[in-house]
Amino acid sequence: MRSDPFRPAQRVAGQRQDVWSIINEAAAASPVQPIVNMGQGFFGYNPPKFVTDAAKEALDKVDCNQYSPTKGRPRLKRAIANAYSPFFGRTLNPDTEVTITTGANEGMLSAFMAFLEPGDEVIVFEPFFDQYISNIEMPGGRLVYVPIHPPASGSTKTQSAGKWRIDMDEVKARISDKTRMIVLNSPHNPIGKVFSEHELREIGELCVEHNILILSDEVYDRLYYTPFTRIATLSPKIADLTLTVGSGGKNFYATGWRVGWLIGPEHLIKYVSAAHTRICYSSVSPLQEATAIGFEKADEMGFWEESVKEMKGKMDRFNRVWSELGLPYSDPEGGYFVLVNMAKVKLPSDYKFPPHVAERPRDFKLAWFLIMEIGVAAIPPTEFFTPGNAHIVEDYMRFAVCKDDSVLETAKERLRGLKQYIVQ
Amino acid sequence: MRSDPFRPAQRVAGQRQDVWSIINEAAAASPVQPIVNMGQGFFGYNPPKFVTDAAKEALDKVDCNQYSPTKGRPRLKRAIANAYSPFFGRTLNPDTEVTITTGANEGMLSAFMAFLEPGDEVIVFEPFFDQYISNIEMPGGRLVYVPIHPPASGSTKTQSAGKWRIDMDEVKARISDKTRMIVLNSPHNPIGKVFSEHELREIGELCVEHNILILSDEVYDRLYYTPFTRIATLSPKIADLTLTVGSGGKNFYATGWRVGWLIGPEHLIKYVSAAHTRICYSSVSPLQEATAIGFEKADEMGFWEESVKEMKGKMDRFNRVWSELGLPYSDPEGGYFVLVNMAKVKLPSDYKFPPHVAERPRDFKLAWFLIMEIGVAAIPPTEFFTPGNAHIVEDYMRFAVCKDDSVLETAKERLRGLKQYIVQ
Ligand SMILES: Cc1ncc(COP(=O)(O)O)c(C=O)c1O
Ligand SMILES: Cc1ncc(COP(=O)(O)O)c(C=O)c1O
Repeated sequence: MRSDPFRPAQRVAGQRQDVWSIINEAAAASPVQPIVNMGQGFFGYNPPKFVTDAAKEALDKVDCNQYSPTKGRPRLKRAIANAYSPFFGRTLNPDTEVTITTGANEGMLSAFMAFLEPGDEVIVFEPFFDQYISNIEMPGGRLVYVPIHPPASGSTKTQSAGKWRIDMDEVKARISDKTRMIVLNSPHNPIGKVFSEHELREIGELCVEHNILILSDEVYDRLYYTPFTRIATLSPKIADLTLTVGSGGKNFYATGWRVGWLIGPEHLIKYVSAAHTRICYSSVSPLQEATAIGFEKADEMGFWEESVKEMKGKMDRFNRVWSELGLPYSDPEGGYFVLVNMAKVKLPSDYKFPPHVAERPRDFKLAWFLIMEIGVAAIPPTEFFTPGNAHIVEDYMRFAVCKDDSVLETAKERLRGLKQYIVQ
Repeated sequence: MRSDPFRPAQRVAGQRQDVWSIINEAAAASPVQPIVNMGQGFFGYNPPKFVTDAAKEALDKVDCNQYSPTKGRPRLKRAIANAYSPFFGRTLNPDTEVTITTGANEGMLSAFMAFLEPGDEVIVFEPFFDQYISNIEMPGGRLVYVPIHPPASGSTKTQSAGKWRIDMDEVKARISDKTRMIVLNSPHNPIGKVFSEHELREIGELCVEHNILILSDEVYDRLYYTPFTRIATLSPKIADLTLTVGSGGKNFYATGWRVGWLIGPEHLIKYVSAAHTRICYSSVSPLQEATAIGFEKADEMGFWEESVKEMKGKMDRFNRVWSELGLPYSDPEGGYFVLVNMAKVKLPSDYKFPPHVAERPRDFKLAWFLIMEIGVAAIPPTEFFTPGNAHIVEDYMRFAVCKDDSVLETAKERLRGLKQYIVQ
């Protein structure tokens, strides 16, 4: 008999407080209210009307309110195959090469569940999207980390986010007989880097050489400000090993809809579908239908161009405040996050931080200070590193610019208050 | 280096074809078209208008389209706590005793992920809801089965589904030092049995004695035609061990919405939330909001009474055909499935079944014959048993009555064609 029936399984036990709850609690406790929240990457505005209208129409259709097929609604699989075939340079089969998931997140979990046996190793770059970690650990995978390095002059000079670099020798050194998968993310959260064709080809060829599966997280695939390459398109051998992840939430400003997908060869997709069926059974039906209609209409509505133009506009609008303040940032090549280097910000030496912040790296203190004194919430990126490499980003802060322009202007106005703490 | 990079993990590899795809493929290939599909338990009609209207309104609200908190939208947790506090006889705390999941299905997976370590045993009754199996196996749990027995005269006499019984000695015999959880389902799919207070008390006290966690799957909790008891209400000690599972999809005729929840003590719920966060991150936002409004308005709309009356009406309307035909059935005490005993149906001895049907028990042949010759699809319930116990239900067939009355009438008309094969 169990003496301890309430003891949780190790996979959910004893986690330290995560960055999201630290920042949200701090934001709620800030004397500056309402706080300007540029922390989490949700949109501060609605999905386009042609997409919400499609959702409303779906809600009147009997089959759109009932269980979707486990692999996804046929209309959505078809719409995605049609939308992505031109990018992939071949005709994708909607029934065998596309599978729908409950957001990109559960899609990635499905991929790990489909291929990882306990003890298998997965290479993940730092900084990482934090959910990768628990998603890899759940099926018993072992994490192997490789850092992405900022440019040496990152603390003094604004330059392209593309200047953050992977050292291929570091990657090669971490490959072992147990290496099963590698996770890529481009456009990258939080760096804003779009990996170049050259970089992707080097990684892809290494994976072919070592038979390593590639999980390419491309959820920001419609937001790039420099040429964007999909690793799956670089060669048939690379394509054979690659699962590409997408997100309706990110594409259509609807992070709460939980519609994602994976695209890849049938020999990989069929097991991702099998894992997804065992995890969620099927994904939300009416919002799959709306996402399908979103893809069907996006081109004729000029939505994708508009989307890039709008987000790039927000990015530039917001980042002007850093130029004013003389704080260098990594100018994003894609996505909606910007990393700002705050090495020049001198926090008052007698400032009192609560213990759960004081014990964390400098970026947590910067985040706390910004929330309490300036009234702007942002995310400390050391959370996305292992402790040994956290020092790499302890002077950086991540801001999400997917907010209304008026919110960005308020943020800028408040951030000008940082001036008194900046030592050039 | 892996010589076999495409080999799936064991947890998704090599499954035999499942009942849903066998039945759906047969239905599509039937000469009788359109087929009347009474197989899967999705509704043949829309959710109530006050709920779809609420969903449409939510789609116009910025925060309803973005990430929900991982534990669920506050309004939904509050609405569920308010709706269920009277049933539980105490005031439920929405923040600590309720957590929202992506359908009941992912909610149950979250519970298993939260508490099962590899090798832990889980007692599951046969027939079972098929997703329990993979959900328990995913975290490494071991299944221990106990059959629910039909009444001895089930093949000759229609009687209450309550006559299906658990043998408590069989349950006791299967308890070991490794028993970690037990899964209950009431109202039961596919039997239609509502477990009596006496039965639940016996099970609950056994769990208290052995410190076994109880996962009580009550997704059909609003559809009962006899008094319904929730095991969590039987004693504080039982409540301490119990997680109760609910489903917005089942409650509001919207199986495709993927909104579910678990109710239980804080010391269990907090780990279910932690597991859910690692699986799906958060659940679909606008449909959570609509489900919240559904709960807020259901009483004043008289929806729950209407729901019972309507489903019981469908059940009785449909089952009259079995009385006409002289085929006995288990008269459901709850839910929307009915098990019909077809021992008296003599299949033509020279009838040709395809190999994947011929190799399965008699109920698969009955299902195939009904689809091909009669034009009605139903589910063979041996799928919900282990091979050793499958014989218990090889003469039964499961019909879902959650369909429009006109569909039920067409089904009945077609089923009258069985008469020529029935030997009384
Ligand atoms: C890099 C990256 N991948 C995946 C996701 C999750 O996407 P979804 O909301 O579709 O689950 C996010 C969300 O922030 C992300 O930043
Ligand atoms: C007994 C039982 N539990 C759980 C579920 C799953 O519910 P949901 O659709 O909310 O995931 C079903 C669906 O058929 C069921 O019959």
